[in-house]
Amino acid sequence: MDKSDISKTVISRLPRYFRYLGDLKDKGTERISSGELSQLMNVTASQIRQDLNNFGGFGQQGYGYNVDYLYTEIGKILGLDKPHNLIICGAGSLGTALAGNPDFINRGFKIKGMFDVDPVKIGKFLHGIEVHANSEMDEFIKENDIDIAVIAVPKEAAQSVADRVLEYGIRAVWNFSNTDLDMPENVIVENVHLLDSLMRLSCDAVGYKNKSKGKANGKG
Amino acid sequence: MDKSDISKTVISRLPRYFRYLGDLKDKGTERISSGELSQLMNVTASQIRQDLNNFGGFGQQGYGYNVDYLYTEIGKILGLDKPHNLIICGAGSLGTALAGNPDFINRGFKIKGMFDVDPVKIGKFLHGIEVHANSEMDEFIKENDIDIAVIAVPKEAAQSVADRVLEYGIRAVWNFSNTDLDMPENVIVENVHLLDSLMRLSCDAVGYKNKSKGKANGKG
Repeated sequence: MDKSDISKTVISRLPRYFRYLGDLKDKGTERISSGELSQLMNVTASQIRQDLNNFGGFGQQGYGYNVDYLYTEIGKILGLDKPHNLIICGAGSLGTALAGNPDFINRGFKIKGMFDVDPVKIGKFLHGIEVHANSEMDEFIKENDIDIAVIAVPKEAAQSVADRVLEYGIRAVWNFSNTDLDMPENVIVENVHLLDSLMRLSCDAVGYKNKSKGKANGKG
Repeated sequence: MDKSDISKTVISRLPRYFRYLGDLKDKGTERISSGELSQLMNVTASQIRQDLNNFGGFGQQGYGYNVDYLYTEIGKILGLDKPHNLIICGAGSLGTALAGNPDFINRGFKIKGMFDVDPVKIGKFLHGIEVHANSEMDEFIKENDIDIAVIAVPKEAAQSVADRVLEYGIRAVWNFSNTDLDMPENVIVENVHLLDSLMRLSCDAVGYKNKSKGKANGKG
């Protein structure tokens, strides 16, 4: 199936489907109805049917969805049918935490190396992954077939590090620095802006507090 | 100004405005036009005018926006005019990385304590923050006026830890575990699903690769 047939909105929801289908698969569930999946995922059954219709007529009346088939097909769309090799730029505490995250390797994302400017860190192994000097980056990316670079450096350094990985051929950047990167059109950037996320939470929490003064159990 | 006058969509964009305005303020910029802000943030000027109109007529023709005023007003909406006290549940590498993030304290988010089940970790200080046993959580939350709990435990433990902080009065949960939490309506949950984010990136990267076979510089 061709990914370009599926809308961007549906695609943005696929990781969550994939996560639930993976959990079901791990539990040995072979099939599931849109109604059951709806309850589990807290999404309307009609939304689920619409989204999953993109994968052919596998939600048959009285049978439900074949969990394994859907999991495999969605995985292909998500590019998980082949392994991805990552480097992490920045061996600070966030980079180290990402290097040790077991979820990534379980889905085929292999962290091949870390990079830092700090001579104390270079040569060390963090969660079994060696920290290299930035001067080795160019060769390392080519030799290890790296396709994703994680930016986990302080925001002041983020743009220059991102420019550097681009120069070495990377076209997919996972940005954890608290700033937006200025990247050319043909580069994919996925941002994880932690402080933005925390502010959205505190904003909602304030709304909740204000409203709950007048109304118990209100949602802000 | 009352937050309820502003749409949810606009509110979800406020953290990003706040971040850019903070950077401008740090650089000593006093005023900025919607055109300049548009270029900086890569958003149309008309979108900016629409969004910021919510904060009164401060984008005057020929004057632009008063950076300090907007920063303060948006900060209030985001609940940043008063400090927030956090606990981090889970003193693993992700919890530790969050505890050491300097961005949070700079915006008034104070991490007061960490909690873990591992006796080896309990009593230790990570980035200056003490790790406590879960049995102390109830009292700690009350004594330290905690309003936000960070869930940074493995997904198997996430729901039970979240249930626990709710029982102790928390109404805002920042969830980093790779699973969705089942929470009552009056609890605010902000999810940071790292693996979902990484899969969106690899999905787009695959799209790019496929398309760029036929067309150089194509964006997937």
